[in-house]
Amino acid sequence: MSTSTARLMDGTALARRTVEETAARAAEFTRRTGTTPCLATVLVGADPASVTYVKMKQNRCAKAGIRSRHVELPAETTTEELVAAITALSEDPDVHGILLQHPVGPHIDERAAFEAIAPEKDVDGVTMASFAAMGFGLPGFVSCTPGGIMRLLDAYDVDLTGKRAVVVGRSAILGKPAGLLLLGRDATVTYCHSRTTDLSAAVREADVLVAAVGKPNFIKGEDIKPGAVVIDAGYNPGNVGDVDFAGAAERASLITPVPGGVGPMTIAVLLAQTVDAAERRLGL
Amino acid sequence: MSTSTARLMDGTALARRTVEETAARAAEFTRRTGTTPCLATVLVGADPASVTYVKMKQNRCAKAGIRSRHVELPAETTTEELVAAITALSEDPDVHGILLQHPVGPHIDERAAFEAIAPEKDVDGVTMASFAAMGFGLPGFVSCTPGGIMRLLDAYDVDLTGKRAVVVGRSAILGKPAGLLLLGRDATVTYCHSRTTDLSAAVREADVLVAAVGKPNFIKGEDIKPGAVVIDAGYNPGNVGDVDFAGAAERASLITPVPGGVGPMTIAVLLAQTVDAAERRLGL
Repeated sequence: MSTSTARLMDGTALARRTVEETAARAAEFTRRTGTTPCLATVLVGADPASVTYVKMKQNRCAKAGIRSRHVELPAETTTEELVAAITALSEDPDVHGILLQHPVGPHIDERAAFEAIAPEKDVDGVTMASFAAMGFGLPGFVSCTPGGIMRLLDAYDVDLTGKRAVVVGRSAILGKPAGLLLLGRDATVTYCHSRTTDLSAAVREADVLVAAVGKPNFIKGEDIKPGAVVIDAGYNPGNVGDVDFAGAAERASLITPVPGGVGPMTIAVLLAQTVDAAERRLGL
Repeated sequence: MSTSTARLMDGTALARRTVEETAARAAEFTRRTGTTPCLATVLVGADPASVTYVKMKQNRCAKAGIRSRHVELPAETTTEELVAAITALSEDPDVHGILLQHPVGPHIDERAAFEAIAPEKDVDGVTMASFAAMGFGLPGFVSCTPGGIMRLLDAYDVDLTGKRAVVVGRSAILGKPAGLLLLGRDATVTYCHSRTTDLSAAVREADVLVAAVGKPNFIKGEDIKPGAVVIDAGYNPGNVGDVDFAGAAERASLITPVPGGVGPMTIAVLLAQTVDAAERRLGL
């Protein structure tokens, strides 16, 4: 039995190249200006996963020649206190980008906290201003994971014009902005989600599938259209994505592995946008 | 030969009811506060269609007990001058809502002008803040035509959950926000547009179709899924919509006529949101 196998979209390699370019730009910025691009990370509480993510982001910053400033707040921080801390970073001229590690705990108004990030420092692409800019195709920062997905599609020369793109998931920082970015690139975009009645039928239409639901092996391989491009933005316990990888790889033309696909691109975009923010502030 | 015929969605009647409710709220606001809800309309140049639209909106305001303040600027107004005029209205406590009649002329940065509208006075739903609020399901003002479409769907008890909704058109104040509002109501939403390769195939999937392209009879009746709900937001010369009405009416369960469908709802939502803005400012 012969089965064709999809080509892998190597997010690890693309992220490495992106970070190398970013590091070169950061070094040039530092040389020209005498200051170093700086990302402020804000962590509320001590959720182990969040602590790990923030540390990883700080490590990557250090390797790319980006300073990081860490703000740690106790779990019992109020919305007002968090907004005040983020506002201070928004006003601090030494800070170029701000990342609020989320989730922030159910007692905090996360949206209010995000909105305290100045749009010109929103290198994680979480504010309403950034969302609207993505929707309207205006300059601004993109949400990092959707931004990473677009870079992967471009790196593998995926033509999006007129293609059916199906986004499974509609979160504010992943599914929704991913769909808007694909729409901005002239794809015909369908949003599916938990209330979609016939998900298989919708998935079968996809020339480009973006899975962003956070449910292991949720998308069946048999539903992948032959020749489709499959982007798995899911990352579930046990290094499992949202797509049945083995089944999908038999039908897709291109597919992201999990891990090593979308994941590494998210941090790469965060770093790149931090240097973008620093450059833009000085009009470079 | 017997053909079933769709039920008409009577936008004229629904708009009348909406305006009556709005007028009652405006009168109550005036009685309680001694001030009258006020919509500022801004017109740049003297394009006959724009002049007509603005006059119509002012007349409707007057009938609903809403004051209107008219700002007329010459065609040669610069972006800076227009932004300054709108900013003054944003800061004027006597003004509750602001409408910039568009298009504003190619030499003006329309987005900059829209963004000068304070979000709490954006009763036409054109700012980036309003767009993001629609995207995130947060409180705010909706774009008037998409808002009118949602009111029509609700008035005719159209269940959207899990339904396939297809939006043809992706403008910033019609197609895109309409899709976001439908997504917020748990429809599975597809955006089609000028670069969509097989529009007929996409339209045939639609349980709910929103046509918003501005091309007469662009959607073929034969592509309407039997039993679909057809919303025609197009309004083309000769009182013709974007959908082949006769053909579509044979297959749809519900359909908006043109004129008398979506059109009247747009102004009704504008008036309703102007009174909303007045009430919200006083915390009513």
